[in-house]
Amino acid sequence: MYTLLKKDKNTEARLGKIITSHGEVDTPNFMPVGTSASVKTLTPQDLKSVGTQIILSNAYHLLLRPGAQIIENAGGLHKFMNWDGPILTDSGGFQVFSLAQLRKIKDDGVEFQSHIDGSKYFITPESIIDFQKVLGSDIMMVLDECIPYPCEHDYVNIALKRTIDWARRSKKAFILGKKSTTRYASRDTRYELFGIVQGGAYPDLRKQAVKQLIDIGFDGYAIGGLSVGEPTELMYETLDATINLLPDDKTRYLMGVGTPQDIVEAVSRGIDIFDCVVPTRNGRNGTAFTAEGLVKIRNAKYKNDYSALDKNCDCECCKNYTRSYLNHLFNVNEILGLRLLSLHNVSFYATLMKNIQRSIEDGSFIDFKKSILDIYEKQPLKRDLSSI
Amino acid sequence: MYTLLKKDKNTEARLGKIITSHGEVDTPNFMPVGTSASVKTLTPQDLKSVGTQIILSNAYHLLLRPGAQIIENAGGLHKFMNWDGPILTDSGGFQVFSLAQLRKIKDDGVEFQSHIDGSKYFITPESIIDFQKVLGSDIMMVLDECIPYPCEHDYVNIALKRTIDWARRSKKAFILGKKSTTRYASRDTRYELFGIVQGGAYPDLRKQAVKQLIDIGFDGYAIGGLSVGEPTELMYETLDATINLLPDDKTRYLMGVGTPQDIVEAVSRGIDIFDCVVPTRNGRNGTAFTAEGLVKIRNAKYKNDYSALDKNCDCECCKNYTRSYLNHLFNVNEILGLRLLSLHNVSFYATLMKNIQRSIEDGSFIDFKKSILDIYEKQPLKRDLSSI
Repeated sequence: MYTLLKKDKNTEARLGKIITSHGEVDTPNFMPVGTSASVKTLTPQDLKSVGTQIILSNAYHLLLRPGAQIIENAGGLHKFMNWDGPILTDSGGFQVFSLAQLRKIKDDGVEFQSHIDGSKYFITPESIIDFQKVLGSDIMMVLDECIPYPCEHDYVNIALKRTIDWARRSKKAFILGKKSTTRYASRDTRYELFGIVQGGAYPDLRKQAVKQLIDIGFDGYAIGGLSVGEPTELMYETLDATINLLPDDKTRYLMGVGTPQDIVEAVSRGIDIFDCVVPTRNGRNGTAFTAEGLVKIRNAKYKNDYSALDKNCDCECCKNYTRSYLNHLFNVNEILGLRLLSLHNVSFYATLMKNIQRSIEDGSFIDFKKSILDIYEKQPLKRDLSSI
Repeated sequence: MYTLLKKDKNTEARLGKIITSHGEVDTPNFMPVGTSASVKTLTPQDLKSVGTQIILSNAYHLLLRPGAQIIENAGGLHKFMNWDGPILTDSGGFQVFSLAQLRKIKDDGVEFQSHIDGSKYFITPESIIDFQKVLGSDIMMVLDECIPYPCEHDYVNIALKRTIDWARRSKKAFILGKKSTTRYASRDTRYELFGIVQGGAYPDLRKQAVKQLIDIGFDGYAIGGLSVGEPTELMYETLDATINLLPDDKTRYLMGVGTPQDIVEAVSRGIDIFDCVVPTRNGRNGTAFTAEGLVKIRNAKYKNDYSALDKNCDCECCKNYTRSYLNHLFNVNEILGLRLLSLHNVSFYATLMKNIQRSIEDGSFIDFKKSILDIYEKQPLKRDLSSI
């Protein structure tokens, strides 16, 4: 349940709160990605220690491994992975895009050939909602068709019709379909279902999508199909064409975004929540986000740098280790390096979101946004489309 | 400084204590291996949380990466890696064995060709002591020649003469050589130097080695050159031929050993400290040590096992996760799995050593030893000689 607490005077930024059965999420907020029921290298205790309030996981990946039965026997995804905070699960719609070679889209649903062992899975809007009920996800996503960029208007139009049809079926399954088969969900456990706005880079189709999704009615609205290879300006244009049509009293979620600069840009347009592999994947690759900008820790200049990775950060990595030691860990391929940089980056993102919240609160968001852009626009981070 | 607290009535097991400038070590004890200034996947806080009192690191590896200057600038190895407990460093003698293709032994020292980039390093008994002073190791090891098994008596004899000569030179360098160049060592920092007994599988040479090392005089005596491929019985026979000649009032260290069964066997013969990659390497390979014996967590039978990895253990892994979840993490190649099993195994070893101490204290060691052998002799773990 989303509550709008405050609107920024200078931008469209919103301060809000999402209440779930597993706790509250202050918005704007960012969800670290735990695709396969693990935010890579980190424990739930680590995530809590840096202020993470909600994580994302992926129904498609969990359906393949470990599968529904094991998570159901565990008592749901929260218990399975020992994370007792809110979880949002994506449906598999992104895998329609990222596993394009391995799937066939039909009106009924999507046939995937497992990228792991070749076995076949037929996912329907209904089945993936049922599975998300087994997971016990606090926020479930409808099955959608995430299309690549660029894409012909005609194709996008056809895909969108299917996505809207699937959204309608998802809503029905969410309300009327098979009840959660898990033994752990109490009667007052609250679940939410979010619709996903598609429509490629075509404002007319995006607008149509928003209208139709609002007609169906969801607890929140995600903007999907962005950050899939289009130029940055086009991403913002598409966002602009879409976002003001969304209802004020529902959560707005920009899927798969992004860098610190993307986040402040999108927040200033009215987005509430984000997810992205950027902090964890870059951490494992040796790139850290700091108050001074990106630090590529393998760089030889850090060999003799005995300062903290980010002097403004009080995460376990920054409190206890030097850049010199972290450089050494990456240099000798020690797993501890991946873990410490992942932890720091997740901490950086959690702090970024807290600072965004605080600046909306006290009316200084526009300045805070500028300070982030000043640092990070000089150091563009390539969008990485290799997620599966 | 070693203090013998109690001798077991039924075996040669000893309860004791080593006092170092960085804290006390209750013996018998086990040192997790942090070859390159990191116990793989774990932080110093993790190690403390499971009761680790002392770790081992390796001067040869640290000399290559990150090199002396970086660790000296950091203020020594303790500060570099943020471990404030005792550290023992091996000298590089084991690398004479493990990197046999990449080194030339001369009477003066050992010429190594770096296994990383081919660059050449000439290590002498004196230089490696000086480097260990830079590291600020609480316990330093002399340079020795660790020989393979099997090996001709004549060769072992020649190697032993060199090892004894090097031990004498090491002692001299330790006392008289270049003072620690580090800025952080106070005048009353206490360092220890251990000699290493070699002599292959030949009791006459082992006895000769002990006698000559005692003549030189060390703070402790290590037994090296075991667990290098010889049959288990021969390892114990060689140990038996050596250990009773060692002085009662000095620490006895069995290098590179071992499995739980090796440890109780060696403790019952009078060994005080151990090091081995067994707990961490097996953890990363998916094998856990538990009160019930080995658990190979990838095994499909654990998919639906919602019990703790080791119900007798209260480490973070066993308190928070199920075998089912750990099986999943290994199944999907999540780094968190390597980390959690490493943590548990180090916890298992720390608890094993505490239980050994307690059982010597209360006179029940012989029963405790039997209980470990009953569990672990059924599940032999192959000795792994692939360490470098």
